[in-house]
Amino acid sequence: MQKKAIVLLSGGLDSITVLALAKQQGFTCYALSFDYGQKHNAELLAAAKIAADYQVEEHKIIKLGFGSIVGSALTDADIAVPNTLQQGIPVTYVPARNTIFLSFALGWAEVLHLKDIFIGVNAVDYSGYPDCRPEFINAFQNLANLATKAGVEGEHFAIHTPLMTMSKGEIIKQGLALGVDYQQTVSCYSADEHGRACGVCDACRLRKAGFIEADVEDPTRYS
Amino acid sequence: MQKKAIVLLSGGLDSITVLALAKQQGFTCYALSFDYGQKHNAELLAAAKIAADYQVEEHKIIKLGFGSIVGSALTDADIAVPNTLQQGIPVTYVPARNTIFLSFALGWAEVLHLKDIFIGVNAVDYSGYPDCRPEFINAFQNLANLATKAGVEGEHFAIHTPLMTMSKGEIIKQGLALGVDYQQTVSCYSADEHGRACGVCDACRLRKAGFIEADVEDPTRYS
Repeated sequence: MQKKAIVLLSGGLDSITVLALAKQQGFTCYALSFDYGQKHNAELLAAAKIAADYQVEEHKIIKLGFGSIVGSALTDADIAVPNTLQQGIPVTYVPARNTIFLSFALGWAEVLHLKDIFIGVNAVDYSGYPDCRPEFINAFQNLANLATKAGVEGEHFAIHTPLMTMSKGEIIKQGLALGVDYQQTVSCYSADEHGRACGVCDACRLRKAGFIEADVEDPTRYS
Repeated sequence: MQKKAIVLLSGGLDSITVLALAKQQGFTCYALSFDYGQKHNAELLAAAKIAADYQVEEHKIIKLGFGSIVGSALTDADIAVPNTLQQGIPVTYVPARNTIFLSFALGWAEVLHLKDIFIGVNAVDYSGYPDCRPEFINAFQNLANLATKAGVEGEHFAIHTPLMTMSKGEIIKQGLALGVDYQQTVSCYSADEHGRACGVCDACRLRKAGFIEADVEDPTRYS
């Protein structure tokens, strides 16, 4: 039987690696992205290109009226994106973001009659985000089984987090081994309309450090 | 200290009762509704009027690109709304709906720094919906505490479901005791643009039976 999975695809370095891993594991993939008013819309353009390159079965971009309820540097023009790594929970944290994203993935999974959802959360480099931790993912998996027709009928959802315990450098090495082209990904919180990265925000710093750790050339296009 | 809560407000009979109960319990209320392409848009107009009547602190209507991923008689023009009560899980079930709604409520709760969320789910009259059961609500509450900054910092979210074990007649009696005007609510799956109910869909049948059970006159405007 054909294995099918939904892959949450932001267009960044992590999610393209997850997509490559899901394909390698033999899954027919459905890509899911969100347009939630993020400043870095270049990310969504990257996601669309990646989805096409990886020949996903379908790529859905869900537009959320999300910016209106959140106060975060990622969506709120009044809060500057910080240029230095923060202690604790960063101001770039978007309230309930992964909960909302996984909820939509769950809804689409029900429609597609599939049980496997891949998400590129990582507890190592982004430990400040509560919704990137294994205990959060386990709780969502439990919720999914209780929330759905399929769960009630005894089937089990699996939320796959293949990057959970990898460092950024390990993620990059894993992706390169699978032939991932990281140049087409956008991680920067303030990327320009051509997808060029600022080089100084948190996401850029983590990404840069990852290429150094992996000991490979950084293909990122900087502005 | 002022108690604040988010109340999920569909504009139907159940959610107005929940709002009245939350106000009675002393909560300053924030109402949250969703425009997910439901056929019965009259419900949202009713929600806006109810929110104004109850002087909520703020009423937010979040527009979701939801219809595009779901196959349900409530949002899909190709599937007829059934006129007879169904066995098992009804076709009007919208995949992951309450999971998605509660996720947005959680995001807004984080922004408002509040911990109490009211939702009018009911396991008696709608037992076919898996996401209306106490075990689902408990799982979401657990998730909320793991998903958020506040939860990580030791605070606890409470998902209030005051209608969970009430029959429709009991809900109506409770609401009437609190002065609720049920004429302004819309429950019908196929209400016309004036908010008049069809009288024959599942929601209308349950509602009608509720007024009979409560032994009070049915104020619903039928088309």
